[in-house]
Amino acid sequence: MISVNERLAGLRRKMKENGVQACIIPSSDPHMSEYLPDHWKARSYFSGFDGSAGTLVVTEKESGLWTDGRYFIQAAHQLADSEIELYRMAVKGVPTYTEFLADKLGDGETVGFDGKMLPVSSVQEMEEKFKEKKLKIKSVDLIRDIWPGRPEIPASEVFVHDAKYAGYTCKEKLEQVRSELKKQKADGEIIAKLDCVAWLMNIRADDIEYNPLAVSYAAVYMDSAYLFINTKRVPAEVMAYLKENGVTVRKYEEIDAALKDIDTKKTILIDPSSFNYELYLLLKQNQNVTVQEGTDTVTGLKGVKNETEIKNIVEAHVKDGCAMVKFRVKLEEMMKNGETVTECTVCDMLREYRAKQPNNKGESFGTIAAYKGNAAMMHYEPNPDTCSTIQNEGFLLIDSGGQYLEGTTDITRTFVMGPLTQEEKEHYTYVLKAHIALASAVFLEGCTGGNVDILSREQVWKHGIDYRCGTGHGVGMFGGVHEGPQNLRINNHVVLKKGMTITNEPGIYEEGKHGIRTENIMLVTEDRNTEYGQFYRFDIITYFPIDTAGIVIDLMSDDDLEWLNHYHQLVYDKLSPQLAGKELAWLKEHTAPIGR
Amino acid sequence: MISVNERLAGLRRKMKENGVQACIIPSSDPHMSEYLPDHWKARSYFSGFDGSAGTLVVTEKESGLWTDGRYFIQAAHQLADSEIELYRMAVKGVPTYTEFLADKLGDGETVGFDGKMLPVSSVQEMEEKFKEKKLKIKSVDLIRDIWPGRPEIPASEVFVHDAKYAGYTCKEKLEQVRSELKKQKADGEIIAKLDCVAWLMNIRADDIEYNPLAVSYAAVYMDSAYLFINTKRVPAEVMAYLKENGVTVRKYEEIDAALKDIDTKKTILIDPSSFNYELYLLLKQNQNVTVQEGTDTVTGLKGVKNETEIKNIVEAHVKDGCAMVKFRVKLEEMMKNGETVTECTVCDMLREYRAKQPNNKGESFGTIAAYKGNAAMMHYEPNPDTCSTIQNEGFLLIDSGGQYLEGTTDITRTFVMGPLTQEEKEHYTYVLKAHIALASAVFLEGCTGGNVDILSREQVWKHGIDYRCGTGHGVGMFGGVHEGPQNLRINNHVVLKKGMTITNEPGIYEEGKHGIRTENIMLVTEDRNTEYGQFYRFDIITYFPIDTAGIVIDLMSDDDLEWLNHYHQLVYDKLSPQLAGKELAWLKEHTAPIGR
Repeated sequence: MISVNERLAGLRRKMKENGVQACIIPSSDPHMSEYLPDHWKARSYFSGFDGSAGTLVVTEKESGLWTDGRYFIQAAHQLADSEIELYRMAVKGVPTYTEFLADKLGDGETVGFDGKMLPVSSVQEMEEKFKEKKLKIKSVDLIRDIWPGRPEIPASEVFVHDAKYAGYTCKEKLEQVRSELKKQKADGEIIAKLDCVAWLMNIRADDIEYNPLAVSYAAVYMDSAYLFINTKRVPAEVMAYLKENGVTVRKYEEIDAALKDIDTKKTILIDPSSFNYELYLLLKQNQNVTVQEGTDTVTGLKGVKNETEIKNIVEAHVKDGCAMVKFRVKLEEMMKNGETVTECTVCDMLREYRAKQPNNKGESFGTIAAYKGNAAMMHYEPNPDTCSTIQNEGFLLIDSGGQYLEGTTDITRTFVMGPLTQEEKEHYTYVLKAHIALASAVFLEGCTGGNVDILSREQVWKHGIDYRCGTGHGVGMFGGVHEGPQNLRINNHVVLKKGMTITNEPGIYEEGKHGIRTENIMLVTEDRNTEYGQFYRFDIITYFPIDTAGIVIDLMSDDDLEWLNHYHQLVYDKLSPQLAGKELAWLKEHTAPIGR
Repeated sequence: MISVNERLAGLRRKMKENGVQACIIPSSDPHMSEYLPDHWKARSYFSGFDGSAGTLVVTEKESGLWTDGRYFIQAAHQLADSEIELYRMAVKGVPTYTEFLADKLGDGETVGFDGKMLPVSSVQEMEEKFKEKKLKIKSVDLIRDIWPGRPEIPASEVFVHDAKYAGYTCKEKLEQVRSELKKQKADGEIIAKLDCVAWLMNIRADDIEYNPLAVSYAAVYMDSAYLFINTKRVPAEVMAYLKENGVTVRKYEEIDAALKDIDTKKTILIDPSSFNYELYLLLKQNQNVTVQEGTDTVTGLKGVKNETEIKNIVEAHVKDGCAMVKFRVKLEEMMKNGETVTECTVCDMLREYRAKQPNNKGESFGTIAAYKGNAAMMHYEPNPDTCSTIQNEGFLLIDSGGQYLEGTTDITRTFVMGPLTQEEKEHYTYVLKAHIALASAVFLEGCTGGNVDILSREQVWKHGIDYRCGTGHGVGMFGGVHEGPQNLRINNHVVLKKGMTITNEPGIYEEGKHGIRTENIMLVTEDRNTEYGQFYRFDIITYFPIDTAGIVIDLMSDDDLEWLNHYHQLVYDKLSPQLAGKELAWLKEHTAPIGR
């Protein structure tokens, strides 16, 4: 196998041939996907770091990998044998990669990148940063010829996601988009994000691990709509469905020509944060087109779930909770019987229990089953060669989720496997209090994720601890497990609206010691309407007991205990009709109210 | 006396003469002051509403007054006898005044306003809003000739605020400004806000009720600085001080000419939110000037208090707390003896007790002494003709503050005068819990007012209640009682920094029933520094007991009680060395720890 350093040497030769003194290889595809088809996993190939987020930057003499707090530990491990230096994003004093490039390169030197792999906004920021140093940029594909065995673009069969799940037909959704475009005074929109295209067209496929999406673009105008997709993968009945709904299907690679060929005056909306720079240049070069940079219409529309979707999503969570109970009971038995259970065993078991549920379409992300210190790596995924064997002590953190026709799930529980240290118990309780403080929030209309985030975080901050990630993220509807626009971070300014779903997942991560996280999905719901306005609360739609064995009861307030007991009653009410025998008995025992 | 309707008739005649179909009279002066010299109180004169914030809009047939939640009740009272309609700002469905004008006026009609009385940003927003309706704007002074008895521009004597209070000399502050200008790549800045000019020049005066400021402008360039002020009011020693510090003094009215006459190429920073539109036009028309719109440098600099300022501010608060104790003891005696005490008596007493403190320079705003239902009007100021007489029951809300050479204070207490209803007690306790939740916050660097605000608000939101104002505001240093950039509102994005002071004043206001508010000033202070970063907390610098008689003890958590007892110990420690006899005894009794 070619080593990472050898791959970088090949890259530097290509850089030289193309007259660029540095290059950027982001974790990206032409659709700015978070989960990438293998075809576009260039950053993994060239750096050896396979976490979901990171950017590789290579200059003639140095190379660096930028990633976020979820991956600091994992990246340090995986980069150890290469020349690549790790840059910890958002840590004080650590430069961004554009700052790094502006610092390392000299007047008039050129930074190369594949313009299809970066969003417009990143390139614009880069240009701004590079202005003073007079650095140039060049869109160039350096890796095409130096990636032996590169996987093909996926082409799984496309199917229709029925309106009985989705709530609206494709035609209705197109009208919603057009109505938003009118508000924004645009005549059309080009949509590149795969979750947006899938939602809009009511189509799904299996192109990307954990993501039921199809590699494609959409274009919506006032009187027409187009889907750009590998047509060989679209069965006749799907073609018919799209046609009925007013959509013309064209080949995937025709998107470039379609943008060049727009031949009547149009103002076209693109979202600079998710639209790739090369297609943007094509639009800019077309004299008929006025490019309007703004927020894409679909993300906001699909972020708010409709009544039909909510009904289905709740159903998906009942199924998922049952799968989790069956898994948990089995795990308890195996541990009791002294069987060897590794983190990988856990992943396999969970996958199988979920697969047995009707309409399951696999998992929504790779299960994080992390025992003891492994759980300090927030996004640890065990592999068979190195995974830990689980013992009857300490914590086992499991973060997993399923894809169902009815919806997408995402749940984390930290199981108490046996004796805990005092610190472990205290940290477990702080995390639970953080979870409860947010889950029981009541907030006035107009509140954003950035406003409510602190309710959770304050419970760990007061102990001098932080989790280096958001408190939560939006979740798709049989789509991506991370879908915006809502999320819970101190700098998020998206207003929380009725019908949005969002995770609540505070944690504590102590390197080499333990990792603790408790995660439910919550639905923004109307609470009271008073003279002061409309209030909202969160309804919890994840149904599975929270392990009470780790709780230091004296740290819990009466309100905390009341919330927990209420939640467990809800879990029992939702799951008990679907369970029987030892599993029902386990549920009853683990949802029983606790007191002081 | 001429009635409001007659004044409006006069205004409409002027509108007609000047060819404008509508006019805007904001609560403003050329310096965008919150507290106005009487010379510029045009909105009060023409509307009859004398609250501190509001905008009067007059069309040929209609007139409206826009004000915020603090004044809904007061404005409704004061407008009752006129033709003017009240528009409640930020209430759902209520148009802004620009929306109102865009709606009422037709194609090509003109809106008139005095360009010195509106900030650049408001005019720019207005132009944007008016574009579609093709409305024109015209800067014109309509009121000059129709305001009999208009007061003169104030001209109180200017004095130097010594560096022993301010921490830095004027010269040092000018260098701080120049250093900020370099960062923003500007060659100069024109400063119009009176609190900014006063801070920068280390000068004070007594031009505006409650504000120790002088009507003036400043201009700072890299190698020179100017103060534009009525020179007759500047004594020789102040002239000498300014000269020593590199400041040239020019006449107030010369600011226009000075901007027209800039004769070398300069990029000049102005803050569109506080710089008046007419001076902006003068800069724009000067071909040597590139106008750079940005955040003014002084507000940020003075928002962070230096060590000397903090030491002095704490001293001011000890004095203020002692004045409050003396007042409170006297009030208790008077009530016990059956003397007649009105809201106005309270205001007079407080003014006198503060005046007795060394270096007192009056009050920082008009005392709000509001008995029972009056307190539901957040910014109620009693007047001798209508004020209530205080009885031995219900709440008396007192919001007051002093100006001292050492600093500016602002404190609210809600006193329990006798028996309370159950609802009053519960609301009192909710407000106290809201106050404590914020006061005891620990937060990571990067947090803004918008992030922490909810900690307080959540405690009333969960009962379906909101207060229609910020949770708190920045406070000046022997300056304005409201000074930014920091404040506590859900949409504030200013990062809280070490050395900032900010009020904590949640409340509950029930029209016709009661108003409750508990307010302290807090200082942003460094807490722990851990692997997760620098944490901050609030140190409380207002020293006066919180009335425990209103508390429903069962609603208080153990943490709430611990905070309150700690705070009362702090109050005792700070004030007891300055008090004796019955006042010391009262302090001891009212800072004693409470339990269940």
